Amino acid sequence: MKEQYSIGIDVGGTNTDIGLVNEKGTIVARTNFSTAEHNDINVYMDTIAEKVRSLLVNNNITNIEGIGIGAPNGNYYTGCIDNAPNLHFGGNIKVKKLLESRLGVPVVLSNDANAAAYGEFIYGGGRGMKHFLMVTVGTGVGSGFVVDGKLIHGHGGAAGELGHSILIPDGRQCSCGRKGCLEAYTSARGICRTCWELRNEMPEYNGVLANVDKDELTSQMIGEAANNGDALALKTFELTGHWLGLACANAVTFSSPEAIFLMGGPLKAGDVFVGPLKKSFDEHLLNIYKGTVEIRLSELKANDVAILGAAALLKNK
Amino acid sequence: MKEQYSIGIDVGGTNTDIGLVNEKGTIVARTNFSTAEHNDINVYMDTIAEKVRSLLVNNNITNIEGIGIGAPNGNYYTGCIDNAPNLHFGGNIKVKKLLESRLGVPVVLSNDANAAAYGEFIYGGGRGMKHFLMVTVGTGVGSGFVVDGKLIHGHGGAAGELGHSILIPDGRQCSCGRKGCLEAYTSARGICRTCWELRNEMPEYNGVLANVDKDELTSQMIGEAANNGDALALKTFELTGHWLGLACANAVTFSSPEAIFLMGGPLKAGDVFVGPLKKSFDEHLLNIYKGTVEIRLSELKANDVAILGAAALLKNK
Repeated sequence: MKEQYSIGIDVGGTNTDIGLVNEKGTIVARTNFSTAEHNDINVYMDTIAEKVRSLLVNNNITNIEGIGIGAPNGNYYTGCIDNAPNLHFGGNIKVKKLLESRLGVPVVLSNDANAAAYGEFIYGGGRGMKHFLMVTVGTGVGSGFVVDGKLIHGHGGAAGELGHSILIPDGRQCSCGRKGCLEAYTSARGICRTCWELRNEMPEYNGVLANVDKDELTSQMIGEAANNGDALALKTFELTGHWLGLACANAVTFSSPEAIFLMGGPLKAGDVFVGPLKKSFDEHLLNIYKGTVEIRLSELKANDVAILGAAALLKNK
Repeated sequence: MKEQYSIGIDVGGTNTDIGLVNEKGTIVARTNFSTAEHNDINVYMDTIAEKVRSLLVNNNITNIEGIGIGAPNGNYYTGCIDNAPNLHFGGNIKVKKLLESRLGVPVVLSNDANAAAYGEFIYGGGRGMKHFLMVTVGTGVGSGFVVDGKLIHGHGGAAGELGHSILIPDGRQCSCGRKGCLEAYTSARGICRTCWELRNEMPEYNGVLANVDKDELTSQMIGEAANNGDALALKTFELTGHWLGLACANAVTFSSPEAIFLMGGPLKAGDVFVGPLKKSFDEHLLNIYKGTVEIRLSELKANDVAILGAAALLKNK
């Protein structure tokens, strides 16, 4: 009997990652391309279809179970991406329909962070847990809630938008059009913005980030500087950890999870970020929850979890 | 065949309400006493037991199914009230054990707001819904989440503490020991505090609340003044509605509910409170949720829902 394969696709604001996944949950081949360079949804869908076909041809696979997609604002019920603030395609994008018509296989869509949570649930640190929360930190900040062993999709199909809970009323402008969202503070872009603001408050600063242009600053750069002891970068992650720790403590009041898993590029900074985050979480956690919940890093590689989670959604349809 | 009765008990920071409930969900008799005047948990439990026995004797009932209790920080799994900030009894109170030993019938405990949500689910506007949120506004601010047709208790048993999510970082001191909790702004006490603060900013104010002492001010008084057009009282509810609307919009990002039900004494103020609340909710709601969720008032009497919900918990054990 031939092994059954599926495709997992992670639609990020910056890149789109596509993986060919076997039944054991191993990504046997993968490819990616720039999401940000696409402005036309039909061209974007053509590119996805072409990349999927190439993956199958290159691996001598003629038949797949289907395609699971994790995307910002991906709606499990409707199969549409609805006005995702981090994508150039506006309106309601009928991803499921557009891709099924191109490839002729079943397509399942969910919020990218929901998919990541599902990946952690099936393959990672969430195995065996009934209640946990996944927080993804990248171009945006997403989340997925597992409650009583099931992923929450909610009434509208788009539950788990922690990144767009308002952390600081009337605070920073967010890409969603509102002000003060968690995402405006702790996404990769939010981290760069914090660093830039702090630099303007530190005229005496002359470290490695002193001569970096605003547009060239990246959260990775700040993470490396922080790990080399740079004062500005350390202060940036202290503040970012403070905000994300507070948001995580707030999230506990909803579902009382056993763990909050974190994943995404900026987490690679390590202790300089996670240390202040855990400190803030402990400080802001309501006393009745103390000892019942812990902050953990995803046990899956940041690059794998979204693809695996997306592919795993097919098992759950 | 004899009709089966149960007892529902609502433990509030101010009063304890006890109701005798029949199978149809009608409260056939009720009594109440002051919680706030009790400092000793054993005397408090003796009082509950005595009141329950009187209710049964006065109604010629010799046998009940059990007792359901809704209480702040009531833990469904352990049967304990854990360090409730609005109660004078500190530590972990073994309510289930203490009451079962006194009355010899099964006792089920949950968070008071969870019980209210369950009451709305079984008897009120939440009938037939799969996803909704109940927010209770009283001495404290509580909440209960129904997700996929089930009440969320979470890992630790105390899910749904929306009142202790931090709305304004480093904001008002809350009774829980932290700062900026929603409850510090929109509970009955929070409303009085807002009114008092606003009055100090309005030296020209000479309305009905001008000569009320700080300790004598109540949210009911402010509600009545607002409905008579008092500027200070109206401004108080505008701000309170603004904050609660923002918190409700944030809550939607978690579970994407079909409705948010509101109940509690201060809601009796009506449109002067609910109007600004809905306005703020609409302003702060992430665009993908628009049209999928509505703010509604509980369809059960504020005095009934907690007792009915508590009694209904017995059906769910």
